[in-house]
Amino acid sequence: MSLDNATQKPHDRLSGVLSAEMEAVNALIRTRMASEHAPRIPEVTAHLVEAGGKRLRPMLTLAAARLCDYAGPFHIHLAATVEFIHTATLLHDDVVDESDRRRGRPTANLLWDNKSSILVGDYLFARSFQLMVETGSLRVLDILADASATIAEGEVLQLTAAQNLATDEEIYLQVIRGKTAALFAAACEVGGVIAGAPETSVEALRTYGDALGISFQIVDDLLDYGGSSEATGKNIGDDFREGKLTLPVIKAVAAASDEERGFWARVIEKRDQKDGDLEHALTLLARHDAMDQTRQEAVRWANIAKNALEVLPADPIRDMLSDLADYVVARIS
Amino acid sequence: MSLDNATQKPHDRLSGVLSAEMEAVNALIRTRMASEHAPRIPEVTAHLVEAGGKRLRPMLTLAAARLCDYAGPFHIHLAATVEFIHTATLLHDDVVDESDRRRGRPTANLLWDNKSSILVGDYLFARSFQLMVETGSLRVLDILADASATIAEGEVLQLTAAQNLATDEEIYLQVIRGKTAALFAAACEVGGVIAGAPETSVEALRTYGDALGISFQIVDDLLDYGGSSEATGKNIGDDFREGKLTLPVIKAVAAASDEERGFWARVIEKRDQKDGDLEHALTLLARHDAMDQTRQEAVRWANIAKNALEVLPADPIRDMLSDLADYVVARIS
Repeated sequence: MSLDNATQKPHDRLSGVLSAEMEAVNALIRTRMASEHAPRIPEVTAHLVEAGGKRLRPMLTLAAARLCDYAGPFHIHLAATVEFIHTATLLHDDVVDESDRRRGRPTANLLWDNKSSILVGDYLFARSFQLMVETGSLRVLDILADASATIAEGEVLQLTAAQNLATDEEIYLQVIRGKTAALFAAACEVGGVIAGAPETSVEALRTYGDALGISFQIVDDLLDYGGSSEATGKNIGDDFREGKLTLPVIKAVAAASDEERGFWARVIEKRDQKDGDLEHALTLLARHDAMDQTRQEAVRWANIAKNALEVLPADPIRDMLSDLADYVVARIS
Repeated sequence: MSLDNATQKPHDRLSGVLSAEMEAVNALIRTRMASEHAPRIPEVTAHLVEAGGKRLRPMLTLAAARLCDYAGPFHIHLAATVEFIHTATLLHDDVVDESDRRRGRPTANLLWDNKSSILVGDYLFARSFQLMVETGSLRVLDILADASATIAEGEVLQLTAAQNLATDEEIYLQVIRGKTAALFAAACEVGGVIAGAPETSVEALRTYGDALGISFQIVDDLLDYGGSSEATGKNIGDDFREGKLTLPVIKAVAAASDEERGFWARVIEKRDQKDGDLEHALTLLARHDAMDQTRQEAVRWANIAKNALEVLPADPIRDMLSDLADYVVARIS
């Protein structure tokens, strides 16, 4: 905390304020990713967990609990739960997407094999489940069970929707709610629930997490067509090359001429791509103002997130959560 | 129930006695495998669920609950939970094992793809979790969370242990506990717990399920070297061809000469197999009495299962559970 607050990213400020709790979460994660019998489990998990993800989701749980004056100890369990669920989904996603890089390192499916990624993911999901049962809160279990179902449903939906030009903004919203927002929302909500916060606060936390997650994913999808690989850790056009239909393209397809539609059908649905196609896609996105409209959509959700916080008690943590929503969209401003 | 009791298989007698509850379980499974947004989910699930598995695990839950005088309704939820967990693990197993047949039909990973099997498995696991939360019993959640972790840990252990001649009977037992016995044990135990049965009964049900599951898996592994494909639905030597180390081979390896050990190292560890190897393996199993010793081990566990039942109230269902343990090993007698 030696840096001036104003110059630090909101995420780092939250990290600073919550550092003792984050250390407890990290210690719990290390303990619970162990396996007496199967050393492959901590090997694979450590590879991913120690690659230095931002721990954004567990931090949301800790922040929500602290904001609602929770004294502990179960917010630590819930934060570790949320990180385990996230890690399990990353392991499975990388198999499904046949990815070879994650957080700047080779993926587990590449270093070990798909089998290990599938089964270790299952193990982490079971471990997350044990952790949340220890809190003794049926309401928390209910929230996380629903989030788990929404995540998996969104992933399956994406399988069929991603390369289909009929995918509209409503379906896109369902997909990214599953992919990203459901766990953000649950991470925030359970922090309030475990603290015994009033219903208005719990609802506000959920709305904040949901909107933050949606904004976060829209920005991620936008950067795929306009960010630098430095900012995102991935290359421009990855989604395009995979034929993955995201919001910028959905907006351009909605406004497309017949000829343009033929182009999108070829490159996205048939994945028949040649040199220059990405550049042409970027031209079409610009022609129909799709990038800017997508940017506005991300900002709109960030504002929904910030507005939701207003019913919560005034607190430096509340301000950091608000700044976090601004920061998510600042990447594209 | 028109057949004479004595001529019916114990499994079919249980089915008859529990038919109303099993119908309720099937109806619940159909409702909960639906997905509003992703039709791929019920398609894949129906393919497997409606292929006519024996529904042995949910039946154990219903039988245990009935034996402990439970009036309902949550044994139905728990039975559906157990079947969903089982179905999820089958979907993932078939991807991991690259299987192409299951229950006499092409596997989901063959008909659709690995992605669908992975993600629909995740969805069913999340659905099972929602179902068990609805029972409101933290103890039940605790048991099923532990079982889920044991299952996944056993699967990972099998990845590294299966093709390793250093795998001994203790590791084998851990693997089959994860693969099979953990869910049998939990299925029985939660039936007693939801009924509020005394601790001695709950413990007995757990022991019964664990021992029945172990016996069941040993028999399955034995039949792979000696059953007909009619009895098992799979071909003799499948495990051998996959280099999967199971109890008969573990026993033969323990008693092997140096030359025999070299054979096992080649065919199991290196999976370097040629014509006549399976026949030679069968000769070695016979030479060291490995088949008969394995058979005795299966019978020993079946007897542990039967003995555990003695503390439970005398009841026709108790007798059927006892007969079920006999029936499991009758396949190899």
